Amino acid sequence: MAPSDERHRARMARKQEVVAAKVARASRDKGLLLVLTGIGKGKSSSAFGMIARALGHGMKVGVVQFIKGAFSTGEEAFFRRFPEEVDYRVMGEGFTWVTQDRQRDRQAAEAAWETARAMLQNPELGLVVLDELNIVLKHGYLPLERVLADLSRRTAGQHVVVTGRGARPELIELADTVSEVANVKHAFAQGIRAQKGIEF
Amino acid sequence: MAPSDERHRARMARKQEVVAAKVARASRDKGLLLVLTGIGKGKSSSAFGMIARALGHGMKVGVVQFIKGAFSTGEEAFFRRFPEEVDYRVMGEGFTWVTQDRQRDRQAAEAAWETARAMLQNPELGLVVLDELNIVLKHGYLPLERVLADLSRRTAGQHVVVTGRGARPELIELADTVSEVANVKHAFAQGIRAQKGIEF
Repeated sequence: MAPSDERHRARMARKQEVVAAKVARASRDKGLLLVLTGIGKGKSSSAFGMIARALGHGMKVGVVQFIKGAFSTGEEAFFRRFPEEVDYRVMGEGFTWVTQDRQRDRQAAEAAWETARAMLQNPELGLVVLDELNIVLKHGYLPLERVLADLSRRTAGQHVVVTGRGARPELIELADTVSEVANVKHAFAQGIRAQKGIEF
Repeated sequence: MAPSDERHRARMARKQEVVAAKVARASRDKGLLLVLTGIGKGKSSSAFGMIARALGHGMKVGVVQFIKGAFSTGEEAFFRRFPEEVDYRVMGEGFTWVTQDRQRDRQAAEAAWETARAMLQNPELGLVVLDELNIVLKHGYLPLERVLADLSRRTAGQHVVVTGRGARPELIELADTVSEVANVKHAFAQGIRAQKGIEF
């Protein structure tokens, strides 16, 4: 064996010890509150990937999409194939600059939150995805305190994923895991429109 | 209508114009190369969410997982339900600190790349996910030039998603869209182990 290969083996053996010690320290289970924020591409799709993960483990999943996009989406078409496993609700009326009506946006947000709250109290749902909830909170369309209280009081062991740019600091504080997705570059800026299977 | 509601409507109407102009400028279609990097949670799950999107649009998908995790994963169990639509290959031998053998890691990477290359040349696949390829490139287990050349020569219109921390600058340069997922906080650091449906 070459000396550099031997050094590699020794370095990796030390790393294995470090990793094993960290894993040993992380021994608790918990229903996680996960927040995906930032302006980069990948927040909602990450939530949809976790739905696939959860379904693979035999869990049931609830989804509320707070902002309805301009297109019908692939994820909605796909997950509607499994009505026994995924309760999929598209509640929003459209982007705020499309509706241009704050009262209507508020009413839509209230109705969506009632649906979300029922899911948070449903012990059959192992995972609840609240897609673009951050946008709704950023615009003040729902009282933050009520949302935080309902999230805190959710059924034991349930995982919740909240997506959308501009997450409120109080939500970040409450969350267990938070990722901020930064935009390094985006095809849209090079004149390429939203692509099926990637953006919607 | 209250004055503040009127201001909201006017502001949103202006925003709608700006958005419409941007959308009008983005008129091209292209098979995208998307890179998801950074140390935060959500890169691989985002790729798996795009698989759900693509399947919802009737596309076929290829997946190569370059690093096999310690657990059997929910996403693998789930997407294997659709063998006609998803060609799912788990090729890696495990984390580098588990194998501790650079030669074996290199050979595994070479075999995985042969599988990936065949997918990149297959016009039936609308989306190819190369999960944790960045890790393999970071360790130098595959020649970067060959990987970049094969990505550039892929079948027309195909989308490719590459995940993993530490993306090489040359790959970022080649990519159309790049997101960097930063870790704001993570449950693991609070003593909570990897959770089913979220981390695997």
